[in-house]
Amino acid sequence: MSHPIIKDDEVDIVVAAIQPDLTSFMEEWRPIFCRFHLIIVKDPDLQKELIIPEGFNMDLYTKSDMDRVSTSILFTGYSCRYFGYLVSKKKYIVAVDDDCIPAKDGKGFLFDVVAQHISNLRLPATPFFFNTLYDPFQKGADFVRGYPFSLRNGVKCAISCGLWLNLADYDAPTQALKPGERNARYVDAVLTVPLKAMMPLSGINVAFNREVIGPALFPGLHLAGEGKQRWETVEDIWCGMCAKLVCDHLGLGVKSGVPYVWRNDRGDAIETLKKEWLGMKLMEEVVPFFQSVRLPRTAVVAEDCVLEIAAMVKEKLGPVDPLFGQAADAMVEWVRLWKAVESASPTPGA
Amino acid sequence: MSHPIIKDDEVDIVVAAIQPDLTSFMEEWRPIFCRFHLIIVKDPDLQKELIIPEGFNMDLYTKSDMDRVSTSILFTGYSCRYFGYLVSKKKYIVAVDDDCIPAKDGKGFLFDVVAQHISNLRLPATPFFFNTLYDPFQKGADFVRGYPFSLRNGVKCAISCGLWLNLADYDAPTQALKPGERNARYVDAVLTVPLKAMMPLSGINVAFNREVIGPALFPGLHLAGEGKQRWETVEDIWCGMCAKLVCDHLGLGVKSGVPYVWRNDRGDAIETLKKEWLGMKLMEEVVPFFQSVRLPRTAVVAEDCVLEIAAMVKEKLGPVDPLFGQAADAMVEWVRLWKAVESASPTPGA
Repeated sequence: MSHPIIKDDEVDIVVAAIQPDLTSFMEEWRPIFCRFHLIIVKDPDLQKELIIPEGFNMDLYTKSDMDRVSTSILFTGYSCRYFGYLVSKKKYIVAVDDDCIPAKDGKGFLFDVVAQHISNLRLPATPFFFNTLYDPFQKGADFVRGYPFSLRNGVKCAISCGLWLNLADYDAPTQALKPGERNARYVDAVLTVPLKAMMPLSGINVAFNREVIGPALFPGLHLAGEGKQRWETVEDIWCGMCAKLVCDHLGLGVKSGVPYVWRNDRGDAIETLKKEWLGMKLMEEVVPFFQSVRLPRTAVVAEDCVLEIAAMVKEKLGPVDPLFGQAADAMVEWVRLWKAVESASPTPGA
Repeated sequence: MSHPIIKDDEVDIVVAAIQPDLTSFMEEWRPIFCRFHLIIVKDPDLQKELIIPEGFNMDLYTKSDMDRVSTSILFTGYSCRYFGYLVSKKKYIVAVDDDCIPAKDGKGFLFDVVAQHISNLRLPATPFFFNTLYDPFQKGADFVRGYPFSLRNGVKCAISCGLWLNLADYDAPTQALKPGERNARYVDAVLTVPLKAMMPLSGINVAFNREVIGPALFPGLHLAGEGKQRWETVEDIWCGMCAKLVCDHLGLGVKSGVPYVWRNDRGDAIETLKKEWLGMKLMEEVVPFFQSVRLPRTAVVAEDCVLEIAAMVKEKLGPVDPLFGQAADAMVEWVRLWKAVESASPTPGA
């Protein structure tokens, strides 16, 4: 890839600290993260002191910061990263889970996750027509024959979903069924997920344009028995479904593909299976709902869209499971919070 | 990839002979094609005798065969391959343009285009929800977290669109603008193009399940000044838009990605540009039309769907350009022909 010119002050790296010792994580990422501002958010359930190596430009947020802005939003576990999204003042957010390290190419060079994500976000997306040669704006690629010329300008890309080498982002049943499976397939491509296609957005390795889609990335749906394992969580899946819907409605693009991160093993998938795996059941309700949602033309910014979706969730999914009603409430509260934080300190240049 | 067990008698390789000397083409493909039955269709405009090397199990079709079944369908140029689709009795068709040779991996081994296409067609497609790790049925892959379990069975895959190394499938303006550009990016992935996503299907390297989608692959839209160059043609783009619509309506899948073929240079893109490039203008009319089409529930097989689309083309696009009216007529005639050929000699085991 060709490196985009990234202004350091346009990017916040957000890290959710689920484990106390971030030393090896931060050292692995140092060559890539060192030039950017970091927002580290400590899981409010984590009792131990964080261990963070020196030499980073960073701000740390903990439970007391969260309690100051909201007592109703759940920021526990992986959801603490959303607090980082809320307090950031930057245009772009790049978020990586703390069990991931940079992936390396065959020669041992690091793939620059930040550069690739920002490139994905900076270059237009093409949600209205599928390009068979993947991202037409990438060096060496273009629009293939038959691609309508009127659609070749593309639209603004709002979200860039990265992927995972080694341990892929499977759910607990899949992981438990294939304990030895590791993802070794590096697919050197990024593509726009087409308009109206539903997708499972993963929060493990993701970047987005905070100015246009920030309010649509929130901690909404929490499973009752949810632990500290990605394969148990649905918060990112739920907010991803909402965010994709919002992007489709607002004419924004969502890309998926490179960059990859190297994801290390953590936890025991079989242990997870012993719990009732509610996420699986909920998703079956969620898909027909999202297929049916149409947002009104009056919803012209992400905040409006999230409130519209929340109202529909309350009405249509609320009776199915109380978790959906709680998710709807959390979405309304999130938009309130987002607006409050924005108005308290307006984004420079926004 | 893991090789599927391909029954030789399930596959027809269809080659449109646009140039008379097929010697080097056939010799390059011999290791892959030798076990299959070939249907070679000679461009009816081609005057010279075909030169075809010995040792293939093949049938040759020429202008006189075409004239016997239809005098109204245009089988000239690349469109002659459709005659091969019509007369085949096999379940699967694999079609490759005669300016393509097998692509090779880093060690000089040939990529087996037929095995990959048949694997794509045999394994289910997943049009209703996007899987970020590409084809979940491929070895070493699976459905990622958040993918609804009720959609993991997938649906039957009807079309497999392959890609091109070296000379990519660009239109004349793009090719003329970037005369030196060659596609060197081998992306080792195949994915299902999501439901309702429009796409530019290329006829250069394509395979399909003839039993379920055959009638939807037809020579319909012909540009007036259309030559013998792919970058000038729109017949495959047009029928691809129809075929994708039919697949979406019938709950069938369309995949895009591997296998690649190595595509050699042929023709002069700048020469093409001297003609009025009508295809560009037509596509702008075509996209809103296909966005608006809804097929009735009574259309339950591909033939029905094509007739429904033809009627809508006639009504809505006919007034825009007479070429669309002619395309609609050709579609109706194609379905008549398809049914006549089918009833004359029913497909064994169908």
